[in-house]
Amino acid sequence: MPKVLTEEEVGARIEEMRRRPQRFRDGRITMAHGAGGKASRALVEGLVVPLLGDRAPATLSDAAELTVDGTRLAFTTDSFVVRPLSFPGGTIGELAVNGTVNDLAVSGARPLAVSLAMILEEGLPAEALEEQVRAIGAAASAAGVPVATGDTKVVERGKCDGMYLTTTGVGVLRADASLAPERVRPGDKVLVSGTIGDHGVAIMLARGGLDLEAEVRSDTRSLWPVVHALLDACGPEAHCLRDATRGGVATVLNEIAAAAEVGVLVAEDRLPVRPEVTGACEILGIDPLYVANEGKLVAFVAPEVADAALEAMRGVEAGADAAVIGEVRDEPPGRVLGRTAFGGHRIIDVLVGDPLPRIC
Amino acid sequence: MPKVLTEEEVGARIEEMRRRPQRFRDGRITMAHGAGGKASRALVEGLVVPLLGDRAPATLSDAAELTVDGTRLAFTTDSFVVRPLSFPGGTIGELAVNGTVNDLAVSGARPLAVSLAMILEEGLPAEALEEQVRAIGAAASAAGVPVATGDTKVVERGKCDGMYLTTTGVGVLRADASLAPERVRPGDKVLVSGTIGDHGVAIMLARGGLDLEAEVRSDTRSLWPVVHALLDACGPEAHCLRDATRGGVATVLNEIAAAAEVGVLVAEDRLPVRPEVTGACEILGIDPLYVANEGKLVAFVAPEVADAALEAMRGVEAGADAAVIGEVRDEPPGRVLGRTAFGGHRIIDVLVGDPLPRIC
Repeated sequence: MPKVLTEEEVGARIEEMRRRPQRFRDGRITMAHGAGGKASRALVEGLVVPLLGDRAPATLSDAAELTVDGTRLAFTTDSFVVRPLSFPGGTIGELAVNGTVNDLAVSGARPLAVSLAMILEEGLPAEALEEQVRAIGAAASAAGVPVATGDTKVVERGKCDGMYLTTTGVGVLRADASLAPERVRPGDKVLVSGTIGDHGVAIMLARGGLDLEAEVRSDTRSLWPVVHALLDACGPEAHCLRDATRGGVATVLNEIAAAAEVGVLVAEDRLPVRPEVTGACEILGIDPLYVANEGKLVAFVAPEVADAALEAMRGVEAGADAAVIGEVRDEPPGRVLGRTAFGGHRIIDVLVGDPLPRIC
Repeated sequence: MPKVLTEEEVGARIEEMRRRPQRFRDGRITMAHGAGGKASRALVEGLVVPLLGDRAPATLSDAAELTVDGTRLAFTTDSFVVRPLSFPGGTIGELAVNGTVNDLAVSGARPLAVSLAMILEEGLPAEALEEQVRAIGAAASAAGVPVATGDTKVVERGKCDGMYLTTTGVGVLRADASLAPERVRPGDKVLVSGTIGDHGVAIMLARGGLDLEAEVRSDTRSLWPVVHALLDACGPEAHCLRDATRGGVATVLNEIAAAAEVGVLVAEDRLPVRPEVTGACEILGIDPLYVANEGKLVAFVAPEVADAALEAMRGVEAGADAAVIGEVRDEPPGRVLGRTAFGGHRIIDVLVGDPLPRIC
């Protein structure tokens, strides 16, 4: 358990913890560089982006915006290396479609098409591939998006782990969507679209080795219906959306707090967490706030539309368990604080290391 | 050496060799499924496309066309698993940019943006990553295209081979481009934009094990300048373009012959091949027509614009060694014939197996 601090103690630690420019100092790549936390950020901001040259964006993690003949498009890519390939509630194929669809969705874009690049391991049983391609087709159909183009490569036995998938999506930005971390301001309400931690816990249980009978299913699904309903209800008063994948809700909150230079206060007793997930996390000694989701988003909305946003999200199946979990404050800038059920505060920091490698 | 047949003998074999519907019957994935030849086609057309569902295209290998608010976009993806990561004349990073830029280019699209998804092996030296990211930035800059978005995943040591890259490109189709295999018709001239086989031979030499001193460099580069010049010269009289990567020029010719239901006759003595490449291929017992290129395209143009096309291609650096190598005929439909220097004919068939795994 992290030490619980008073608000004064927290304040005293802010100065030393203020965000420093990211540098990449590691001699070798470690699993942590793929975990979506501090090391990932250092790799991307400290090595990749500077070496890509002048035209690279400051961060590669969001969907890029491309404007063509006055039409605003969103463009995003993700590789999927989850193991095992199939697990309760999902498969690598479904993750690959939904993950990219969701990156488009949280940028405010209706998914238009996805591409599918497969790296297959020599010796992979044809049925395993069939299962995944079928899952990709079904997920794409459910998300209403065609798989428009693709590629297949094969590498020697032992040079892959069954299959790795990379999907890239193109979407059309809604005219009323104006979503960016910089639009988040003090007073905004913070919502999540449902229970947190389901996907990561499902993967951990599927890997076995845990003496735990709980049945937890991945939450992989398209978030476009949630975003669509939210934008219908709030329009530009929805300030920023993020899907809470690697690094979980805590990582999203930290990224937004840093980018918008605001503080975020989370009412920890309002976090929707399934009892089975809470139980598994306690046994594992991890915090559900840091556990990956594959069908949940975090929304920052103006306070006057918070009720409408909540109602809109709850009105669609994928947002049935939506909740307001906190609010944005002036202080401490760049920091996320949790208010515990007992009234104390703790710093909810950026993830260090990789507690759950290859979660997506 | 393949047996040389007379035109009559060839005719007699056509019926039995007519294209059959592709089925996927293999129990496991083999290296051949990634080689771009017969097995790849069976995998994509016999397994992937049918299981992806109704909205999937008949083939996933070309750039897809997306229309947004009346603007025609091209969309394409490729994974790169080449080994070694660096080789004379290129790197995996350059291939990843140029390969995707070229898939856009040969569809007639000006590259607008590329995405970059990296799968890294735990333990990869940071300098190796730096070298590749730098190469990606330089290649993107040379091709005039921004790396707009990206993703990084890390897998355990031994579950990758240094790094695998997947790039996806979006481009804007030129209004005067009307490029499709179905537009190829008898009488069309067939051109290549330069010497063939350079990339594949460079990779083979870089892998060592050959008692050969020849210095052959990969031809990896953006083909957009060649396409741009060609379309300026020919407009819609350019009927079809393809970059001749996996499986080489022979594979492209076979794909187009099958799709357009035409015959292609290649004057083998007109094929531009560097003497070092010819020499290496002789020692290796392979045919340069089947060797991968990473900066060469095959063009099918109306006969009346063939001279203009050749001049236009030769007018840009990437097309300096362009040549007319053959023509399209009525017969034999779906087949490629080579006319040897001695006046005989041979069937230039689709590649079977994978003589050069992980060439890109």
